[in-house]
Amino acid sequence: MAAPTTESTPSTEPATPTGRIVLGANQYGKAECRLVRITRDTPVHRIEDLNVSSQLRGDFTACHTDGDNSKVVATDTQKNTVYAFAKEYGVGAPEEFLLTLGRHFVESFVWVSGGRWEAEQFAWERIVVNGQPHDHAFVRSGRATRTTVVQIDGDESFVLSGIKDCVVLKSTGSEFHGFPRDRFTTLAETDDRILATSVTAWWRYGGDGSDGFAGLDFNASHAAIEATLLETFAGVHSLALQQTIFEAGKAILEAHPEVAEVKMSCPNKHHFLVDLTPFGMENPNEVFVAADRPYGLIQATIQREGLPGAPRAWATVPGFC
Amino acid sequence: MAAPTTESTPSTEPATPTGRIVLGANQYGKAECRLVRITRDTPVHRIEDLNVSSQLRGDFTACHTDGDNSKVVATDTQKNTVYAFAKEYGVGAPEEFLLTLGRHFVESFVWVSGGRWEAEQFAWERIVVNGQPHDHAFVRSGRATRTTVVQIDGDESFVLSGIKDCVVLKSTGSEFHGFPRDRFTTLAETDDRILATSVTAWWRYGGDGSDGFAGLDFNASHAAIEATLLETFAGVHSLALQQTIFEAGKAILEAHPEVAEVKMSCPNKHHFLVDLTPFGMENPNEVFVAADRPYGLIQATIQREGLPGAPRAWATVPGFC
Amino acid sequence: MAAPTTESTPSTEPATPTGRIVLGANQYGKAECRLVRITRDTPVHRIEDLNVSSQLRGDFTACHTDGDNSKVVATDTQKNTVYAFAKEYGVGAPEEFLLTLGRHFVESFVWVSGGRWEAEQFAWERIVVNGQPHDHAFVRSGRATRTTVVQIDGDESFVLSGIKDCVVLKSTGSEFHGFPRDRFTTLAETDDRILATSVTAWWRYGGDGSDGFAGLDFNASHAAIEATLLETFAGVHSLALQQTIFEAGKAILEAHPEVAEVKMSCPNKHHFLVDLTPFGMENPNEVFVAADRPYGLIQATIQREGLPGAPRAWATVPGFC
Amino acid sequence: MAAPTTESTPSTEPATPTGRIVLGANQYGKAECRLVRITRDTPVHRIEDLNVSSQLRGDFTACHTDGDNSKVVATDTQKNTVYAFAKEYGVGAPEEFLLTLGRHFVESFVWVSGGRWEAEQFAWERIVVNGQPHDHAFVRSGRATRTTVVQIDGDESFVLSGIKDCVVLKSTGSEFHGFPRDRFTTLAETDDRILATSVTAWWRYGGDGSDGFAGLDFNASHAAIEATLLETFAGVHSLALQQTIFEAGKAILEAHPEVAEVKMSCPNKHHFLVDLTPFGMENPNEVFVAADRPYGLIQATIQREGLPGAPRAWATVPGFC
Repeated sequence: MAAPTTESTPSTEPATPTGRIVLGANQYGKAECRLVRITRDTPVHRIEDLNVSSQLRGDFTACHTDGDNSKVVATDTQKNTVYAFAKEYGVGAPEEFLLTLGRHFVESFVWVSGGRWEAEQFAWERIVVNGQPHDHAFVRSGRATRTTVVQIDGDESFVLSGIKDCVVLKSTGSEFHGFPRDRFTTLAETDDRILATSVTAWWRYGGDGSDGFAGLDFNASHAAIEATLLETFAGVHSLALQQTIFEAGKAILEAHPEVAEVKMSCPNKHHFLVDLTPFGMENPNEVFVAADRPYGLIQATIQREGLPGAPRAWATVPGFC
Repeated sequence: MAAPTTESTPSTEPATPTGRIVLGANQYGKAECRLVRITRDTPVHRIEDLNVSSQLRGDFTACHTDGDNSKVVATDTQKNTVYAFAKEYGVGAPEEFLLTLGRHFVESFVWVSGGRWEAEQFAWERIVVNGQPHDHAFVRSGRATRTTVVQIDGDESFVLSGIKDCVVLKSTGSEFHGFPRDRFTTLAETDDRILATSVTAWWRYGGDGSDGFAGLDFNASHAAIEATLLETFAGVHSLALQQTIFEAGKAILEAHPEVAEVKMSCPNKHHFLVDLTPFGMENPNEVFVAADRPYGLIQATIQREGLPGAPRAWATVPGFC
Repeated sequence: MAAPTTESTPSTEPATPTGRIVLGANQYGKAECRLVRITRDTPVHRIEDLNVSSQLRGDFTACHTDGDNSKVVATDTQKNTVYAFAKEYGVGAPEEFLLTLGRHFVESFVWVSGGRWEAEQFAWERIVVNGQPHDHAFVRSGRATRTTVVQIDGDESFVLSGIKDCVVLKSTGSEFHGFPRDRFTTLAETDDRILATSVTAWWRYGGDGSDGFAGLDFNASHAAIEATLLETFAGVHSLALQQTIFEAGKAILEAHPEVAEVKMSCPNKHHFLVDLTPFGMENPNEVFVAADRPYGLIQATIQREGLPGAPRAWATVPGFC
Repeated sequence: MAAPTTESTPSTEPATPTGRIVLGANQYGKAECRLVRITRDTPVHRIEDLNVSSQLRGDFTACHTDGDNSKVVATDTQKNTVYAFAKEYGVGAPEEFLLTLGRHFVESFVWVSGGRWEAEQFAWERIVVNGQPHDHAFVRSGRATRTTVVQIDGDESFVLSGIKDCVVLKSTGSEFHGFPRDRFTTLAETDDRILATSVTAWWRYGGDGSDGFAGLDFNASHAAIEATLLETFAGVHSLALQQTIFEAGKAILEAHPEVAEVKMSCPNKHHFLVDLTPFGMENPNEVFVAADRPYGLIQATIQREGLPGAPRAWATVPGFC
């Protein structure tokens, strides 16, 4: 397993420090290009709403050390390319759009060896008028945000897809007990609590992109995986949020052969039972305080045994172990 | 039409300044009590998720001028009451919950003459498993947040309800032209643009609460008004966002006799057509930049002619004209 | 005392509802124009960094009811005017800048009767290099944000200035006891607690602007008032946050004759003493949890006895009683 | 150079996929414990204000696969330990505090092999009263937030420290030209522009912690490095933000031998010159729009040649290449 390129030091690295200060891993580009693409070839318009970031990697040493910009594809140019490609190719799936975008830069500029392209996609529903979905009026659905990170490293491509800000809650079917007790332990055990989290999930599609991820319908896959995730959260009787997360990752890997590994990061959004006894009242799991901070934070990787991981695919994904 | 109580100066006010510094309008309480109420009398649980703020008005001068807290119902006590009442009475509709809460304070403490109670309510949907809505697993719907402000002033009660963060977009059916041009005008006219906004709407229910708003089903009314609002946004061919707002308010007032007046505050979330001509490409309203700042901001009141307004109901509602 | 214009209904208002739906108070404009003004007439540059919002009031009925934009000074034009005026007149003080801006619109368009102009100003310090403040390199000071709202109504002008996001804390010198106890009271009394808040303060400069607020140095006044506010917070031994607020407002009014009234809105940012007794440890006011929500919220007006208030000046200022 | 532990697959990994689904890298704990520590051994109080997150790594497989919590040190216990240690040891420097905290968990629980501890520290200044700094009244300085991440892996410890949200701006002394032009390039070259960014910087202290980072004064080092960073930003005549970043990292490494490597992530906060020519006005670099999105994003590592990097130290640091 290769170490991540972005952390690698040059192969010509001397065995001992020389005292020189040198440039290490780096990337640059334009972040958060807000792109709305309307497809209007029929009166029934379609909308795609993305937040796109583009970052290039390659030989940019002279810019850093000498202010020589002769190889610096301007971040403004990267932004322009995002919008021009949205016209030329449409979006389709954000994963495809980013692969097309990234390959353009790698193929167009010999000193660009790869990069990182990221998108958030916001969902819209049609407004219903007289029971019918409207042709060109939409309301934004805030249930979750679709995410993707594409990284290209020479001939290889890595595709992560995911969701974030998907807040789920079970009002029963969750326990937490049997944990060790030390001098600093005060938490009571419980066999019935609220379990709530805001799911950040990422999954890596298998393959190195040499076949262009041929035959993969990213949109259909994403929708199916999100459904699997929600169904598993609902269905698992939980003894720990860790268990729920593992089961969700396992269900995704079992049902979706196109997925190589899954990472989830889930805050345990605590809902504390309010003590109403001072007021002469019982509270049989009915009234809760939804707390802000601190929160539990559970992060795990779920993998296929024997299938090597791909650290380069995950490098720079925020906050993941 | 009475001036707002909260702005009134005492009737014993001298005609000329005396040089004394005195306390004017004031209120205090506990803000943002996050309350989750589970109703679990059957295996099919229900969830109500609120953010409740309570503020009292009355005779609190001694606290301000002398640090005498003998009349200061602690903000902690206000918070406790929120949770205790959630157990005792349930939530039902946030408007009812706040009316019950507010009347409790006014009736319990002789020096409390009124106050302001506010709630946000977050919507949850049941997770669908095998095509069936789950009994006790939920996913938060981020489409909009329901809001309400209840103000009590002695025997009178005012109820505002609304929505916020409801983002809507029309990909056609919007024009903007015919505006005056001065030295500083550069904007081009357009007969086809994207119209997008994040709706903040408030409506005031008629009556002074002396009948307890008898017979009013706040939940049903809220759902119907939100539907009217969305349908009107979709249906109006817009010559200005102002026109769309007026039509939406008018539709609400026409269809919902329980509503006395409507206020809307709508940012014009600009979607700028990207100029692709430098790249030799046309852009027939397909590729847009969604801009952040600045944004247009359109705010209007829509009323029933001849029906007096109620400034006291609107006092302290953020940002409304 | 006149009722706020923005809430008034037309003088031709019938005595009884007619069934017609009509436009009430309204305003519109461009919000959050981010303006950075560099003054570079010497090598020692100066920077002014503002967030400016402009909203017009007047006769805009035809736009709302008929989509007739012939009187609608485009929000884009308002934005352009902000930037052009920044060049033509400089900023100086944000209060002056907004007064100049607002009068321009009222004087240029006969149907514009007034409006509301708001600015936030962000503070920058010079970066110190070798002990010397740099000529043209700055670091943003996040200690507080300066705010102002100017409202014009015909010949009258109102100027509010303030600060927000100014977070202060006293580690002792604050008590809270003697409050009434009812069925829902559980809070313990304390004679030594942390008092912390994020100050939002507004003060209204006296006068109606007919003299152009002649002789008033808004920048000097703002700096002096902010210092008075901080000194009073530090100096008052507090029996309640209400008392601290009142004393701060009183100190401002006593020291600054140009100020007519003061409004403050202060969350009580609770710092709860951690109970370390389960771990066999004492905690003599040393270790605290800084809580997020809920928080106390204390809002008060401090006035000069006998001096009429100016509700029109305060209308639409977020969240103030 | 070892691959990051958190990405490693077990050494017993089979050569080919087995079809089993297994747990990969994982961590869990309590995030964002807001801790305020007052030192009051003299009347001149001191305040330390932190946001602490604790996450453990080790053998937690049974919890994930079977809901067996017998090894799960509760996140609530981790939180309690944060507060108890703040009393027992004080904070001192956040780096020391986290090292002490982390070693406690690794030494107390045999199955805990390491973890990740993070802190933000918020700065407070004393309020000045009558020209004197107050004993126990403080105002929060929002100029930057101090950050640190400590990671322990068996006997090894890694310490990163940094700053974030430090917004700096140069009103001249910045150029950008000489970049390549392709079909999608429209950006004009400039030899005088505003350069502004919000600095996120991280530096890794050398050593593996086996000597407890003996003799290192983390507070003094942090203050000196922040000063070096700001001075370099101010002093460098910039031909590209990349160059400024490299020079800042280089200056830190040259002046601070305790630092092994530096990573910086800097948005290019664009300030666009407003085109005032339609209004018949010139704009010689005086009036700018401060844009929100998109923004350039420049990220780079600056290293000592020949000194191996430490990918494990950087794993899970958000957004870094």
